[in-house]
Amino acid sequence: MDLQKEVSWPKLAATVLVGLIIYFIPAPEGLSPDAWHLFAIFFAAILGIIMKAMTMGSISIISITLVAALQLLAPGKASDSIKLALSGFNNPTIWMITLSFFISRGFIKTGLGKRIAYWFIAKLGNSTLGIAYGLTFADLCFAPATPSNTARAGGIIMPIMKSISMSMGSTPEDHASHKKVGAYLTLNSYYSNLITSGMFITATASNSMCQKFAHDLGVEISWGGWAMAALLPGLLSILLVPLILYKIYPPEIKDAKIYKAEAVKKLLELGKITRNELFMVFTFFLLLLLWIFGTTLNMDASVAALIGLSFLLISDVLTWEDVKSEKGAWDTMVWFSALVMMAEGLSKLGFIGWFSAIIKNEVSGMPWIWAFPLIILVYYYSHYLFASATAHVAAMYTAFLAVSIALGIPGKLAALMLGFCGSIFGVLTHYGHGPAPVLFGTGYVDLKDWWKLGFIFSIILLIIWMGSGALWWKILGIY
Amino acid sequence: MDLQKEVSWPKLAATVLVGLIIYFIPAPEGLSPDAWHLFAIFFAAILGIIMKAMTMGSISIISITLVAALQLLAPGKASDSIKLALSGFNNPTIWMITLSFFISRGFIKTGLGKRIAYWFIAKLGNSTLGIAYGLTFADLCFAPATPSNTARAGGIIMPIMKSISMSMGSTPEDHASHKKVGAYLTLNSYYSNLITSGMFITATASNSMCQKFAHDLGVEISWGGWAMAALLPGLLSILLVPLILYKIYPPEIKDAKIYKAEAVKKLLELGKITRNELFMVFTFFLLLLLWIFGTTLNMDASVAALIGLSFLLISDVLTWEDVKSEKGAWDTMVWFSALVMMAEGLSKLGFIGWFSAIIKNEVSGMPWIWAFPLIILVYYYSHYLFASATAHVAAMYTAFLAVSIALGIPGKLAALMLGFCGSIFGVLTHYGHGPAPVLFGTGYVDLKDWWKLGFIFSIILLIIWMGSGALWWKILGIY
Repeated sequence: MDLQKEVSWPKLAATVLVGLIIYFIPAPEGLSPDAWHLFAIFFAAILGIIMKAMTMGSISIISITLVAALQLLAPGKASDSIKLALSGFNNPTIWMITLSFFISRGFIKTGLGKRIAYWFIAKLGNSTLGIAYGLTFADLCFAPATPSNTARAGGIIMPIMKSISMSMGSTPEDHASHKKVGAYLTLNSYYSNLITSGMFITATASNSMCQKFAHDLGVEISWGGWAMAALLPGLLSILLVPLILYKIYPPEIKDAKIYKAEAVKKLLELGKITRNELFMVFTFFLLLLLWIFGTTLNMDASVAALIGLSFLLISDVLTWEDVKSEKGAWDTMVWFSALVMMAEGLSKLGFIGWFSAIIKNEVSGMPWIWAFPLIILVYYYSHYLFASATAHVAAMYTAFLAVSIALGIPGKLAALMLGFCGSIFGVLTHYGHGPAPVLFGTGYVDLKDWWKLGFIFSIILLIIWMGSGALWWKILGIY
Repeated sequence: MDLQKEVSWPKLAATVLVGLIIYFIPAPEGLSPDAWHLFAIFFAAILGIIMKAMTMGSISIISITLVAALQLLAPGKASDSIKLALSGFNNPTIWMITLSFFISRGFIKTGLGKRIAYWFIAKLGNSTLGIAYGLTFADLCFAPATPSNTARAGGIIMPIMKSISMSMGSTPEDHASHKKVGAYLTLNSYYSNLITSGMFITATASNSMCQKFAHDLGVEISWGGWAMAALLPGLLSILLVPLILYKIYPPEIKDAKIYKAEAVKKLLELGKITRNELFMVFTFFLLLLLWIFGTTLNMDASVAALIGLSFLLISDVLTWEDVKSEKGAWDTMVWFSALVMMAEGLSKLGFIGWFSAIIKNEVSGMPWIWAFPLIILVYYYSHYLFASATAHVAAMYTAFLAVSIALGIPGKLAALMLGFCGSIFGVLTHYGHGPAPVLFGTGYVDLKDWWKLGFIFSIILLIIWMGSGALWWKILGIY
């Protein structure tokens, strides 16, 4: 019965005002009024999400309401309008993500997540750098089947990272102790999480949004295709980032043998691997196989996820109570459906085509090899403005990809690199990606350090991905 | 990390076995193999739900998985198959119910539910009979916007009913005290809940399922049309049932003036009506207006529900956290989508037509005026077999309606009366409808009494609904 306020009325008023102004400006030449009105709602929704006028879920419900009530997608037809406004909810891409949320709950619930993290630390944890690599590899293990990278960071990595830091004398309360271990491990955990998020379609929610939007523009990216393209730059980042961070933001304590002993002890306490953990491992590999060979098997990725969840429910590893209680999944399903519905609507009503034609006219004549890095840079650094990767992808991905294609940039190249950016641009700020608030919230890293190092690593990551990518994607025949 | 077992493997094995046997029996003449295979899955799902082999939600997920993976609805087409298997999730009817779950949470959260119940008791509570009427009228007030009749009973009525009984010396622990007040009020609360559930499409989840299934067979029922048809039999039941129960199952304490004083005190404690309660009242009437005038306004009922929820979110009466946490809504959305998808699939693939043609051949020649009560009786008393109104409606409504139409019974008449049965047949058992476990669980009523009185009232309710209905529906021009 608590009345925590979720709505900021001044911000909501500002959002509504902006929306109304756009709405009542006559539609520009070449655009239908419906397309323009949908853009007004979409723009106001993104603005409201960025300003946190309300929660993303509430804004999504209101957006669906407006699109349905104003009958923008099927003028005059009440029943078609609501069906189209709700069309996101039977979108298989969205269900793949929603279902994967349930499945990834199993990593936490069965204790498998903890076990794998301790195992890596027991193997690699002679030094603080080794612990950092251990946590990074553990993150990489879960990434392919954990589209909530926030759950991965907050549910598995962060608790272990924090307990390691504290047991090595680096506590959030004691400011002088932050740089002993905690600060380094915090930033490293954040950066690795973003890198692994970029490596698989199913490693963070917004990737499958990119896949969907690219599909709508005629660019097909399979689960395996994405993973293959990300393989080299992803692995390079995973190997280099902990080391570079270790050099320029070194932990004061370098020897971690004491903690390694503790990890071995924790592993012993966990005992033999349980039946439920084994089921989880099996489900995980089954999912990977079905995702990788989906095209050959003529099976949609969401059906694979359905099979995985069915298996976990039948084996009692997950209960229906777990599913019902997985708020993050329902939350994601709602905002994902609303944003995808609006973005698709903008494409369908001609807004994206109209917009990219304008940009194309502006920069026509530029060779694509110059236009490409320019577009990536603008997309990447505009993330300073966004408090959510999802909002950023929803707002800009389709338009940027359409412009790229119009400028002659190979569609798959642009679609993939813009997709990867959707994860790695998170390094910039302490609010830029799901796990940021969780990790920044530990208190180990000062705001100034977070932003300064964020900027440095934004450059390092861009160089790794664009540089090694240029070679790798050529070899793969992507461009 | 608790491992409460939700799966009964013996029952699950039996369910799967039955499903496999049906699946591998060759399809009867006149039916496609796909229709027959879908029937096998559907039959096994209903069987599993009735036997409680797993939760309804888990069975739904598995059913969706099977229908999608076997590509029954779009053979050979992976992407269409999954979209059709998920088609329930953008069904506006299902969303109306899901959204109404969120909205009705407001009755409980704001305290408006309690206030209205105490108000009625303060007005009518001179006698135990008066209290019964007070609780019944309170239930009637919430019914139009509370599709979870379980929430209405469990969240609002039962706690008050129990506290009244206890303060009048009738406690669950003291067996000898049960009949003082508690037993009478318990049964009366259950019966009234079922009656009000029958009166509005939005008063229990399965009603809108009936509306949807009827629509698929070409019979249109609007929100207002249903309410109008249920008006006379519903009000008669509400007025007669508490009185008849009072005569044949009398409470030992008849004078309730002591408790009336307490209700007045509770009302004073609640103080003036709060801002949030007022918003709730406003939303409630807004919803009713939009539902009643939906056709005139060219607005789908689910858009009305979206507007209602948006309003409650903007006014901070409900938070997004409330929405995410409303497990019952997500649960209902999933099983509702799965059952509707399969039932629609059976219609589309020709199973229902095939089945009703067979029955029609069996009973052809019988005048519909005889066939009608016969069909109703079979549908009604078969509820002894079902542990859930939803499972019953999903399993039998479409087939019974199709047979009715084939026999010449006016479609609207059959659709409505079968619909009303979907609520009132709950009286039969202590597991037959959502609120039954909640109210039976108070422990005030013996199993023997519950079943004996259930049978008596099943006859009384049938007489009221069929008898007054025969007249009323003639006047309304339904047949």
